[in-house]
Amino acid sequence: MTTAGKVIRCRAAVAWEPKKPVVMEDVEVAPPQAHELRIKIVATSVCHTDLYYLYETEDENSFPIVLGHEAAGVVESVGPGVTGFQPGDKVIPLPNPQCGECRFCKSPKTNQCEKGWVANTSVVLSDPDSRFTCKGKKVLQYLGLSTFSEYTVVSDLCVTKIDPAAPLDKVCLLGCGILTGFGAAVNTAKVEPGSTCAVFGLGAVGLAAVMGCSAAGAKRIIAVDINPDKFEKAKVFGATDFVNPKDHSEPVSKVLFEMTNGGVDYSLECVGNVDLMRSALESCVIGWGVSVIVGWTDTSEICARPVQLIAGRTWKGTLLGGYKIKTAIPELVKAYMDKKLMLDEFITHNMPLEQVSDAMELLKHGKCIRSVLSPPQ
Amino acid sequence: MTTAGKVIRCRAAVAWEPKKPVVMEDVEVAPPQAHELRIKIVATSVCHTDLYYLYETEDENSFPIVLGHEAAGVVESVGPGVTGFQPGDKVIPLPNPQCGECRFCKSPKTNQCEKGWVANTSVVLSDPDSRFTCKGKKVLQYLGLSTFSEYTVVSDLCVTKIDPAAPLDKVCLLGCGILTGFGAAVNTAKVEPGSTCAVFGLGAVGLAAVMGCSAAGAKRIIAVDINPDKFEKAKVFGATDFVNPKDHSEPVSKVLFEMTNGGVDYSLECVGNVDLMRSALESCVIGWGVSVIVGWTDTSEICARPVQLIAGRTWKGTLLGGYKIKTAIPELVKAYMDKKLMLDEFITHNMPLEQVSDAMELLKHGKCIRSVLSPPQ
Repeated sequence: MTTAGKVIRCRAAVAWEPKKPVVMEDVEVAPPQAHELRIKIVATSVCHTDLYYLYETEDENSFPIVLGHEAAGVVESVGPGVTGFQPGDKVIPLPNPQCGECRFCKSPKTNQCEKGWVANTSVVLSDPDSRFTCKGKKVLQYLGLSTFSEYTVVSDLCVTKIDPAAPLDKVCLLGCGILTGFGAAVNTAKVEPGSTCAVFGLGAVGLAAVMGCSAAGAKRIIAVDINPDKFEKAKVFGATDFVNPKDHSEPVSKVLFEMTNGGVDYSLECVGNVDLMRSALESCVIGWGVSVIVGWTDTSEICARPVQLIAGRTWKGTLLGGYKIKTAIPELVKAYMDKKLMLDEFITHNMPLEQVSDAMELLKHGKCIRSVLSPPQ
Repeated sequence: MTTAGKVIRCRAAVAWEPKKPVVMEDVEVAPPQAHELRIKIVATSVCHTDLYYLYETEDENSFPIVLGHEAAGVVESVGPGVTGFQPGDKVIPLPNPQCGECRFCKSPKTNQCEKGWVANTSVVLSDPDSRFTCKGKKVLQYLGLSTFSEYTVVSDLCVTKIDPAAPLDKVCLLGCGILTGFGAAVNTAKVEPGSTCAVFGLGAVGLAAVMGCSAAGAKRIIAVDINPDKFEKAKVFGATDFVNPKDHSEPVSKVLFEMTNGGVDYSLECVGNVDLMRSALESCVIGWGVSVIVGWTDTSEICARPVQLIAGRTWKGTLLGGYKIKTAIPELVKAYMDKKLMLDEFITHNMPLEQVSDAMELLKHGKCIRSVLSPPQ
């Protein structure tokens, strides 16, 4: 019996209020409207941005919400006007659209899109509209996605079709964190062969940045984390040197300066901490050092002495690794299937969706790299 | 009668203490030591950095000092080991060296030099050694130059030979400010044809930045200053639009955002004010906007929301417009002589060196663009 055109009742993780664990609930997911798709989620992973929203959003109006934005699934039904997708297609939802029509989409310089939330200078990462209800209440959709659910509805600008042979419980990771870190190195920093890089923070994004530096041919990749348990994993992705700032009385930028005789060529901040963003900038060599902000935060500001830039350093940031993701993700899926990109190595836990709150706790306490959650199929 | 090898007694402007006007004094200039040249200054202009040092340096040990670093002159004598220069050569002293040997000099990416003061992370712009004395006291040399003097001694790494036909009272401007602004646009921002630029601050550096944007083919150049008297001059250098922030109740970044439907492609801060550096960054379009810090300050810090960079903006700085100045200045002199670069238009005052303090006051109060000072010849 087809579900198309009908409200689907299913399980989803609802964040009812800030700073409180999400709760698995029975929700209603409305049918897709014009230019929307309803997707059956097959696998979804927990990304730091989900935690950031839950713990750093003060505004009560930003709740209740269904979090989750890193996922893969199968199209259940499509709304009017949708072309290029049909029920049964394997897809990955996108945390930022690619309309293909605007001046950003038409420029090779950026992956911004006029339809995106940054272009709209929104500080709340949530679409005010939603297809979710729970206990008679409207529930918001995080980044317009909400993948911590058996089903969700997304805009056709925010989804991309992938190789039907791809294992969804692996390639779901490509929805956000891995391409963010990898692209930060290869697209935003544009790491050059033979260079020296430093990656601050060895979560999934940082490890993907290490993998990106390695793929770009960096000669030396210095992995920095206050948790030395992460170093073994970083080695798997290509790190050559390891620094635990807690082992040193000097600031980490000074340690790196001395290790490299003047600073690194590229530094990537993969935590979302403004003090570390400053350290990453200061760790770069004068003249040509490039520092990229990869981690996300909007609760405090970055600061630096102007001379840090005047001396020839460049400060950049990356959103989703600079990839035009609607077109890039299918290519990255192919790279994974061709064994040119590691994904399995990021997955430390597999759990049923019902345990999403446990998975979020693991991430919060740095006890996992990526947990992949599966709704009952 | 030759002066070579002898101490020269001459007139120079001595800054005896912070925040007090400089005083013309009789000074002694020792002969050049190994790899040094003594130069007879023919013309020197006043740059904002001279004022910055006088008014913002708190350390008493940084005085007395002879300021001045934007000049042209003739080689009077050379010390042992100097090759490539001889008495009578027309030269421009350089505020930063170009040794030609170090990894920075050998890289096309930067104009830094391992022998330079930024590389040495010095915060005092003064060479601790000096060939100047006055009233029995050692007097420091600003940036190792000190051109507010009839004679000075400089390192052979910090001087470049120019076309003997060049008018020194014009090309002296190429020693710092003009190439800084011009190069900030063409070398650091790498302004592209057809783009939209904003230049904040219309002193000599800002006007030169306007000229650089124009030379690079910018379609629209928005000149921003709180002194609308500067707009007429900015038009001469190629500005197409004019904004006085005092005419608007909204922040200037918002005004520019609206004027340009989303922000400028390139912004250049040519004042040395950290709030304006932030405004300049925020005035850039997301996706590809590049903001360059051209003005100098080290008394406070730049700050911004991380999302400003994450959204695809790039924050850079420029030192001397990114030019490898020892090789670039002779080419810029040629460009001026071929009428491809304006210099005369920057000069609003010509005065004898004895009036240097008046010239500094004019600049301090925004009453001039460039004053060119001439010692008696």
